[in-house]
Amino acid sequence: MAPDHLSTTFAALADPTRRAILARLVSGERSVTELAAPFEMSLPAVSKHLRVLERAGLIARGREAQWRPCRLEAGPLKEVAEWTERYRALWEQRLDRLDTYLQQLKTKEKTHARKKRRQ
Amino acid sequence: MAPDHLSTTFAALADPTRRAILARLVSGERSVTELAAPFEMSLPAVSKHLRVLERAGLIARGREAQWRPCRLEAGPLKEVAEWTERYRALWEQRLDRLDTYLQQLKTKEKTHARKKRRQ
Repeated sequence: MAPDHLSTTFAALADPTRRAILARLVSGERSVTELAAPFEMSLPAVSKHLRVLERAGLIARGREAQWRPCRLEAGPLKEVAEWTERYRALWEQRLDRLDTYLQQLKTKEKTHARKKRRQ
Repeated sequence: MAPDHLSTTFAALADPTRRAILARLVSGERSVTELAAPFEMSLPAVSKHLRVLERAGLIARGREAQWRPCRLEAGPLKEVAEWTERYRALWEQRLDRLDTYLQQLKTKEKTHARKKRRQ
């Protein structure tokens, strides 16, 4: 069974080098040599990462024979953002609960300090 | 080298069954048997998926010996949302460009239709 589109995207993002490549492409098109420069990695190793990103639709390559620049394609990242969005209420609730708990702790501390001063 | 936290999260999300399990946990805690029910899958196969989700910190298991309910932990999903957020400008720009292009097409169509009527 062919993996679904979102799974292919997540798998492509499950690597720090591939995420670093995407981050570098935010500022514009880059050649493979330019992308390889900051990594201690051979060109074939970088090319392999680029193929994974290309298959996931996260980058596209130019057609110039000499210089096939890579550019970022943000569509799949939008899908990831939309997928996570349905869970937003959960982490916001959690932070709200933590906030309530901290407020309660602070109130207790204040009451405790007041009692101590009276003694 | 141990994979970084975000890579572990993305790898755990790169599977439709695991994402379906997370979606079911939005409404509350579930036992392994309850989680396995909608999938044509053995309990050990579901347990394996749960271990991957647990290692990524996406779920936590209760400590009750008989019934170890699973609950969703939204923290890593918040990290994913924050990571994608930095690319938002890119896909919004792309949609803006598409919108401009569509407006131009509509204007052209109108001009063309007006010219035809005059002929």
